[in-house]
Amino acid sequence: MSRIVQKFGGSSVADADSIKRVAKRIVATRQAGHDVVVVISAMGDTTDELMDLALRVSPRPAPRELDMLLTAGERMSAALLAMAIADLGMTARSFTGSQAGVITTAQHGNARIIDITPGRIVSALEAGDVVIVAGFQGVSQDTRDVTTIGRGGSDTTAVALAASLGADHCEIYSDVDGVFTADPRIVPNARHLTEISYEEMLELAACGSKILHLRCVEYARRERIPVHVRSAFTTSDGTWVTDLPDDDAPGRPVITGVAHDVGEAKITIVGVPDRIGEAARIFQEISSIDVGIDMIVQNVSAVATERTDISFTLPKVDSRAAIEALTGIQQEVDFADLLYDDQIGKVSVVGSAMRSHPGVSATFFAALAAADVNLEMISTSGIRISVVIDDQDVPRAVRAAHTAFGLDADQEATVYAGTGR
Amino acid sequence: MSRIVQKFGGSSVADADSIKRVAKRIVATRQAGHDVVVVISAMGDTTDELMDLALRVSPRPAPRELDMLLTAGERMSAALLAMAIADLGMTARSFTGSQAGVITTAQHGNARIIDITPGRIVSALEAGDVVIVAGFQGVSQDTRDVTTIGRGGSDTTAVALAASLGADHCEIYSDVDGVFTADPRIVPNARHLTEISYEEMLELAACGSKILHLRCVEYARRERIPVHVRSAFTTSDGTWVTDLPDDDAPGRPVITGVAHDVGEAKITIVGVPDRIGEAARIFQEISSIDVGIDMIVQNVSAVATERTDISFTLPKVDSRAAIEALTGIQQEVDFADLLYDDQIGKVSVVGSAMRSHPGVSATFFAALAAADVNLEMISTSGIRISVVIDDQDVPRAVRAAHTAFGLDADQEATVYAGTGR
Repeated sequence: MSRIVQKFGGSSVADADSIKRVAKRIVATRQAGHDVVVVISAMGDTTDELMDLALRVSPRPAPRELDMLLTAGERMSAALLAMAIADLGMTARSFTGSQAGVITTAQHGNARIIDITPGRIVSALEAGDVVIVAGFQGVSQDTRDVTTIGRGGSDTTAVALAASLGADHCEIYSDVDGVFTADPRIVPNARHLTEISYEEMLELAACGSKILHLRCVEYARRERIPVHVRSAFTTSDGTWVTDLPDDDAPGRPVITGVAHDVGEAKITIVGVPDRIGEAARIFQEISSIDVGIDMIVQNVSAVATERTDISFTLPKVDSRAAIEALTGIQQEVDFADLLYDDQIGKVSVVGSAMRSHPGVSATFFAALAAADVNLEMISTSGIRISVVIDDQDVPRAVRAAHTAFGLDADQEATVYAGTGR
Repeated sequence: MSRIVQKFGGSSVADADSIKRVAKRIVATRQAGHDVVVVISAMGDTTDELMDLALRVSPRPAPRELDMLLTAGERMSAALLAMAIADLGMTARSFTGSQAGVITTAQHGNARIIDITPGRIVSALEAGDVVIVAGFQGVSQDTRDVTTIGRGGSDTTAVALAASLGADHCEIYSDVDGVFTADPRIVPNARHLTEISYEEMLELAACGSKILHLRCVEYARRERIPVHVRSAFTTSDGTWVTDLPDDDAPGRPVITGVAHDVGEAKITIVGVPDRIGEAARIFQEISSIDVGIDMIVQNVSAVATERTDISFTLPKVDSRAAIEALTGIQQEVDFADLLYDDQIGKVSVVGSAMRSHPGVSATFFAALAAADVNLEMISTSGIRISVVIDDQDVPRAVRAAHTAFGLDADQEATVYAGTGR
């Protein structure tokens, strides 16, 4: 008998019928003899609806109270799922994040899991119950206030619970069949991956893949929890995110996948004085308003002017705050101008075999050039190469890279069921 | 500076605009220099909607999980109200029943408050915050599970909090202006009462008045908390429920109010063997399924048959369960038949001056007779006389009693704003 943590997303529990269907699936796992802990998201659009309600009451909802409000969504779906399981003749018990012992930082709206104290869960499992945990939420260590864990919070909760409960693995159910070599909406003959390493999944998540959130993969890698990403609508196997012992096994393609992201914008700070500490000053300012920077490029200083341009990319949603912050320090830093461009996209190729295969960037850039794609920025990690391009060129660039690295399958990926989360 | 507990019902927070209006009212109380603790119900029809959802998932929702689900309603309104108050420039903090220290029995759906441990509330008040508590909910002492307090639960929570916080008084806001000598929908010239004793309010609540729930009044009487029942839609004074030092003050009418209730049904058990213990057996059975009996009448045994008929009234909603339970013991008890009548109504006159004024029942029955109303059952307490009659006769009987005891006002009660809760 093993212990399994299962996480179901909001689209799997959009209405009463889907809740009953998920309940059957959970009961089947329990009847196969496993201890089952389920982490559940809010039903369908509940979170968006609650957010709308909050904005009708207050233009800037108090963060502590917004967390109190939003966590009601998962509480409801957890209780409903427990009822549906009880109806199938099995005892089930729902817990809020707080009751489940999910201890977090106090950063409302974007808290991080510090620890899990799963005493009540363990007792319920020992009593033979199926345990349902409301995802996306915890309780802050210092204030004992209810917190939300931010994007991907339910996935991260599931992996964290799996680690603290010594589970054999964690299953993440959504409306997609797992991880593909590219987004099948853009590359119809993308291949389904049966497994992928933590490191590669981390890079894909950082480069726009919506399958698993970055923090969730980080947690899984740190705790060495195998994660099975699969569809709630089929019984076919999904993708195992796990330790792959040999990054350079014979026959493995050099590139595991091509990711893209059109959710970022580019800000260029024009005419920054070429003095020590100016870049630090600029990015401290951005960091102080809690905006995450992705790529940074600084051109060589023009000798005549002793000034330089610094460009960086950031999530579009954070652009306004970043521009306001930078405008606030324009006089102090003495830069000339700010340019803003949200018509950009990022395309990345990821593969751990890249470490031992030179020439990947040459192949990638040649494919893009042949597809008539102009490169605006380039950045690399050990197992990833990313380029920023015009957002109109993204589909063409993804398809070109996918073909260039030999990833095209013989047939179209017919199993793809949804639109991601 | 005093400490005040305010409770707002679901109709006062039915949408974003009403939440903002309630927030202004609370802020005004706080600005007047009072410590304010607010108990809030779920918005409008939220509880009914959640119950519908539960029934779509499960025909008989697991009680523990139903409580988990339903308590989300008050959690949401509490958080939204706290946001709206924060928007007005005042710090506010919402707490669930569990966080507020509302300790209850473990009887899901109908738990009772055992104790309040308001440590977090007191800390928040000392920090200058307005405190918002989600009503209708607590946490069970033994299992630490979330519970709901049953009908009138938010009112009872408010009074219990007022007692534990040493509040000066408790204000219960709803859509009615307070307590009237009769329901103004039936008696247009009913009088508004500026005050009423705990004992009288208890009897009215037990006899169908929906203004305050029985448990709430019991709690207020036991803890001697003055309760101000008033409208959330006007600023006029409501009714004070309090200790009235002299039940027989000169000029006070003998009868304080006329109550009616058409929510009950009557069951008659025909041909019960006239043996010691049979009645006990019957009512043990009813009690075991947690059904509350109101009036019981047993006729004198017919000598020839040594059998008797026992009639009792009970809430209509419990009738089906009671009939099933009684049918289950028909052979054991050996009664002949069960008769069921849900076309009944109860009319009661209540007044603590009744104790020192004989002849009240004579006046009451004469008035009913003159109005051509037939009496089916009669029961009395020290300060109340109730009759069960045909439900068609209820409005006529209420008006006749109201007039007979000199309660009619010179003009119609124009201030009545709503339809009760």
